[in-house]
Amino acid sequence: MNARQLFEQIKEKSSYLCIGLDTDFNKLPKILMEKEYPLFEFNKRIVRATSDLAVAYKPNLAFYENLGAAGLMSLEMTVNYIRSHFPEIFIIADAKRGDIGNSSRLYASAFFRNYDFDAVTVSPYMGADSVKPFLEYPDKWAVLLALTSNEGAEDFQFQKIAGKREPLFQKVVQISKSWGNENNLMYVVGATQAEWLKKIRRIIPEHFILIPGLGAQGGSLEEVSLAGMNSQCGILVNASRSVIYADSTSKFDEGARAAAQEIQTRMAGYLKNARLI
Amino acid sequence: MNARQLFEQIKEKSSYLCIGLDTDFNKLPKILMEKEYPLFEFNKRIVRATSDLAVAYKPNLAFYENLGAAGLMSLEMTVNYIRSHFPEIFIIADAKRGDIGNSSRLYASAFFRNYDFDAVTVSPYMGADSVKPFLEYPDKWAVLLALTSNEGAEDFQFQKIAGKREPLFQKVVQISKSWGNENNLMYVVGATQAEWLKKIRRIIPEHFILIPGLGAQGGSLEEVSLAGMNSQCGILVNASRSVIYADSTSKFDEGARAAAQEIQTRMAGYLKNARLI
Repeated sequence: MNARQLFEQIKEKSSYLCIGLDTDFNKLPKILMEKEYPLFEFNKRIVRATSDLAVAYKPNLAFYENLGAAGLMSLEMTVNYIRSHFPEIFIIADAKRGDIGNSSRLYASAFFRNYDFDAVTVSPYMGADSVKPFLEYPDKWAVLLALTSNEGAEDFQFQKIAGKREPLFQKVVQISKSWGNENNLMYVVGATQAEWLKKIRRIIPEHFILIPGLGAQGGSLEEVSLAGMNSQCGILVNASRSVIYADSTSKFDEGARAAAQEIQTRMAGYLKNARLI
Repeated sequence: MNARQLFEQIKEKSSYLCIGLDTDFNKLPKILMEKEYPLFEFNKRIVRATSDLAVAYKPNLAFYENLGAAGLMSLEMTVNYIRSHFPEIFIIADAKRGDIGNSSRLYASAFFRNYDFDAVTVSPYMGADSVKPFLEYPDKWAVLLALTSNEGAEDFQFQKIAGKREPLFQKVVQISKSWGNENNLMYVVGATQAEWLKKIRRIIPEHFILIPGLGAQGGSLEEVSLAGMNSQCGILVNASRSVIYADSTSKFDEGARAAAQEIQTRMAGYLKNARLI
């Protein structure tokens, strides 16, 4: 999928919502725990209930790897389910990979060939040769960590680089933007960092930005929408726990839909204000 | 395993060799490709042929994930094989993980509980809360990327931080060393960076340092041994391709043993010179 196709979907659904499938076995309704692939059963009902409100889903690999082979089977079934029923939807592997070139090449092949994800999140610490293998697949994306939404972002991402005294994460965006283009490279900027989002938007006016950290982590949808939107929307805003665990009963999918609907309605408003729909 | 136990093993084997199990399906001898778990069959024979010469093994996850469920089964069987036959050996998951706290907690549990690895390599970019969950398991280790051996290390790790104008990787070591101690925190410093290894050793005189990048990547064993050793040895030097693919025939294990033996003999010399054995 390229940037234009993603924007088309955003306009059609009046939404730039990405739903994070941080599916925690311990938080599942009891009725699902007895199934052979409980994470998949949960995800399937979440996706079925929200697919007209979300343009992307983002399973976080930690939750699947933690359950071993059965967890990874749930992941594969989830990707295949979305791909076959809702082919327009963008699927992001939140895996935060990054290794020397020959290893990154294998990770890229695992996520793009074995699983058919559209995108993988990648950590920038090891530099160009650790990221470029993810940029070599047509219509696939690397989503590079720039400024994350967690407390630990303070430790290194905000270290000022000598010379212009700009924070490391800005340097990461500036240097890495030449590695790819706006059809294969996206950036993570946490929703808790709206003031910095504006500055990053100036460095990469055309690229999509993936914004996690709404809800449980405290980011404001209005602030990041105002700070991050460009003429093609240019942002995906992720909500995980606040949507998928909105209701803990066996009707969890209806609760998730209601939570997603509430976000989508506000997104439609921001898209209208920006005259994008 | 703690640092003292690791040093005991180093003295006993006169070796600080870590063998990287970057087991590439496409490089296996044909005779193994027909097996149900070819990566495991290869690893088992490599380990059996070299276990008296190496103190650690380091499977790189990319090679196993790339083969899906069968690859991960080979990984699990490899860890279990080493653990049950050679319980003194240190096993490192070269996974380069790192995510917000609740996700890193799941990764730590996957590698330390499900798989029984002794250590996991972790990327520092997301800061303290992404690393600390790996430090909460008794006798388990986080191996934090400081300065890597690849070209891309130049892109961000060498960026000078304002103020003291020291490179980012030094800042990473300085800040992170308080997160753990010399029994649960180790650092990666590439063998291609011997001149910097000395400076890092001054910041962390007591910690173990894992040094990849010998052989195929061009580092010098003598240089890194001189620059990195402390009074408890304090270094593990990794060789991957140069050992495990030393011989491409069906007698690959004998070839690997000869390559490992050659390295171990030199290591014994450096340990003697340093009066550690």
